[in-house]
Amino acid sequence: MITLLTDFGTRDSYVAEMKAVILRLNSQAAIVDVTHEIEPQAVAEGAVVLGRAYQVFAPDAVHIAVVDPDVGTARNALLLMTPEGRFLAPDNGLITYAVRESPEYEKAIAGAGFLQAVAVPIPAGFAAYRLSNEALWRRPVSDTFHGRDVFAPVAAHLSLGLPPQEVGEPVASLTCLSIPHPRRRGDEIAGHVVHVDRFGNLSTTIGGDAVEGRDVGVAVGGNRIRGISRSYAEGGELLAVIGSGGSLEIAVRDGSAARSLGVRVGEPVVVRL
Amino acid sequence: MITLLTDFGTRDSYVAEMKAVILRLNSQAAIVDVTHEIEPQAVAEGAVVLGRAYQVFAPDAVHIAVVDPDVGTARNALLLMTPEGRFLAPDNGLITYAVRESPEYEKAIAGAGFLQAVAVPIPAGFAAYRLSNEALWRRPVSDTFHGRDVFAPVAAHLSLGLPPQEVGEPVASLTCLSIPHPRRRGDEIAGHVVHVDRFGNLSTTIGGDAVEGRDVGVAVGGNRIRGISRSYAEGGELLAVIGSGGSLEIAVRDGSAARSLGVRVGEPVVVRL
Amino acid sequence: MITLLTDFGTRDSYVAEMKAVILRLNSQAAIVDVTHEIEPQAVAEGAVVLGRAYQVFAPDAVHIAVVDPDVGTARNALLLMTPEGRFLAPDNGLITYAVRESPEYEKAIAGAGFLQAVAVPIPAGFAAYRLSNEALWRRPVSDTFHGRDVFAPVAAHLSLGLPPQEVGEPVASLTCLSIPHPRRRGDEIAGHVVHVDRFGNLSTTIGGDAVEGRDVGVAVGGNRIRGISRSYAEGGELLAVIGSGGSLEIAVRDGSAARSLGVRVGEPVVVRL
Repeated sequence: MITLLTDFGTRDSYVAEMKAVILRLNSQAAIVDVTHEIEPQAVAEGAVVLGRAYQVFAPDAVHIAVVDPDVGTARNALLLMTPEGRFLAPDNGLITYAVRESPEYEKAIAGAGFLQAVAVPIPAGFAAYRLSNEALWRRPVSDTFHGRDVFAPVAAHLSLGLPPQEVGEPVASLTCLSIPHPRRRGDEIAGHVVHVDRFGNLSTTIGGDAVEGRDVGVAVGGNRIRGISRSYAEGGELLAVIGSGGSLEIAVRDGSAARSLGVRVGEPVVVRL
Repeated sequence: MITLLTDFGTRDSYVAEMKAVILRLNSQAAIVDVTHEIEPQAVAEGAVVLGRAYQVFAPDAVHIAVVDPDVGTARNALLLMTPEGRFLAPDNGLITYAVRESPEYEKAIAGAGFLQAVAVPIPAGFAAYRLSNEALWRRPVSDTFHGRDVFAPVAAHLSLGLPPQEVGEPVASLTCLSIPHPRRRGDEIAGHVVHVDRFGNLSTTIGGDAVEGRDVGVAVGGNRIRGISRSYAEGGELLAVIGSGGSLEIAVRDGSAARSLGVRVGEPVVVRL
Repeated sequence: MITLLTDFGTRDSYVAEMKAVILRLNSQAAIVDVTHEIEPQAVAEGAVVLGRAYQVFAPDAVHIAVVDPDVGTARNALLLMTPEGRFLAPDNGLITYAVRESPEYEKAIAGAGFLQAVAVPIPAGFAAYRLSNEALWRRPVSDTFHGRDVFAPVAAHLSLGLPPQEVGEPVASLTCLSIPHPRRRGDEIAGHVVHVDRFGNLSTTIGGDAVEGRDVGVAVGGNRIRGISRSYAEGGELLAVIGSGGSLEIAVRDGSAARSLGVRVGEPVVVRL
């Protein structure tokens, strides 16, 4: 199983070219598109969508993520091995969620601004490699399309059983974006809006466990919501709900919370217990 | 074979999460996307697109349709078994076309307005079940994403041979939208525009059989078309044609009939024979 | 392996219907979407995207391309057999790139305007057939949807080993669009913008080999670029680069060259060596 997440869109043949490369190496590969509609070069958006998706796949899945404004420069291309999945991506923060629960991440982002890039040591039990074994790549390599010429063939080889250390030399850290877990201060939990989905629903960094079934107040963008609804349909016009990713979500019934509230990723959200 | 029709869009990972759930249960499942671009919460549009699509698939296909504004409320989730396919969907009208040729449907919609929701008894030879066997579901179930946690795993189990009665208890009726067959009055056939496609072509409820090869006049949105063209290319600027779904279609050559005529779903269409 | 390129979009069920037809005939077929987002009836855009894509697939792939404003008229539907792939498409220029390197093409387009349609004799070593063996088609054939009723079933039969001459009688020429190779005059190479991708990057007809690593000047839309950058990230705001399709590309770092320069397909591009 190989998944693909890119900002390539679906108008051009880029995604099909990646699939052609994979299927020529492993005709049995099952390829699932996560999305190709990440905003061009929006690394943080890609990180959040990938962070949700991989958790639903089996741990032996290979996840290719390519939102890569620095393709062709000295930036590293990585393989990250984790207990929950294998990740291939440029070293720019796309794989943030794969290590976000580790103490190494927590420590590394201390003091960093929201979505700021920081170097995080590879967590214990994980391993990371810089893709440098050019024998695995498609030739010639285009400096503008490592998705097709580097990531796709390496993923195919991994899906066929290639040991991870064959892809290149180990690295000691990877780039992550600072997406801090919410902070509890007294009876308040402070987090952020971290994603806006197709419906205009606002995902937050605040876990559902902390608020589920409790009579809380939620403040976001100058608005205040009372209580957590069980579903989008059971609540007022503006409502808070535990989203399907497991975190607190702000929604507008039959509408777009992002548009109604004029709120974007990074907006503070405060829950009063 | 499992098909997917949703209003989830392709920007987020929702569709991939459904596929991950299916493939973890049945790695051999062939999954075909019908569309994920149904307008958010546009149940009628989903019903029409599904109504076309399922007829091309083999009768043993499992069709998942999720346009589900009331997800997480008391609305039922259904499995409908028909001689032409198996359908999994919320009980909100999405499955209308699967029963639309039955006398039970015809009788139930008598007097209802166009697209009005009505309860239709399960037709003879069909069977329907409320999804209530939670042992089949993904745990924990999100109240906002039954597509991933209820419909996807049930579809996977069905594709592996699970008998339909295992998904839950039988139900006696399902919700349908009133999309009446056209009425013949004297030398006139009166129907409706029922769908606008990507090209702006207007599909109608008027079957092609009734008009094919005949010298008819078609009235829609204050315009009048003379004759049925054999193709989009053979006709005037504004033309009538038998569409690929088998029904009368209104098109503008190299343009959008919906935009040119300012016409939407529900617009009356009258054919004079 | 069967690929699909159309202008059908992904809102309707058209693409799924093609896949249903293929999979009912060959349940083992691997189907890859190239794109369905070609602008409606934009044959030239389809030709360029297909021309890139097929080169990455194995030579035994069957490529279906349907951008077909004249569907249902007397226009031919073709199978073109080449050493690099098998192509099914209406005879309107979609398959241009499959024969563009041949002397027959070069000769046939002499004097034609950019993107003008011309008849090109089938190159030596290639073969082409008009789809006329109706026994292979889906019945009844819709005059507005040969993608589903003609091209899809023929592709499925070919993928199962049907000899190409079974699809219909041979033809002596096919329609191509005039997309001339660039001309060298003194120290200048003159070509055209031939495609605008999702990022707004401008692909040209000028091959990368001619300019790679050389200190050239590139003139396009009244702008002048000095030198060829190695990647999108290494260069000025406006830059020239060897794109992943192997040709000279004009890009704006973190932006759209098409929008910044107000340039479209057909715009002349001149390289001074």
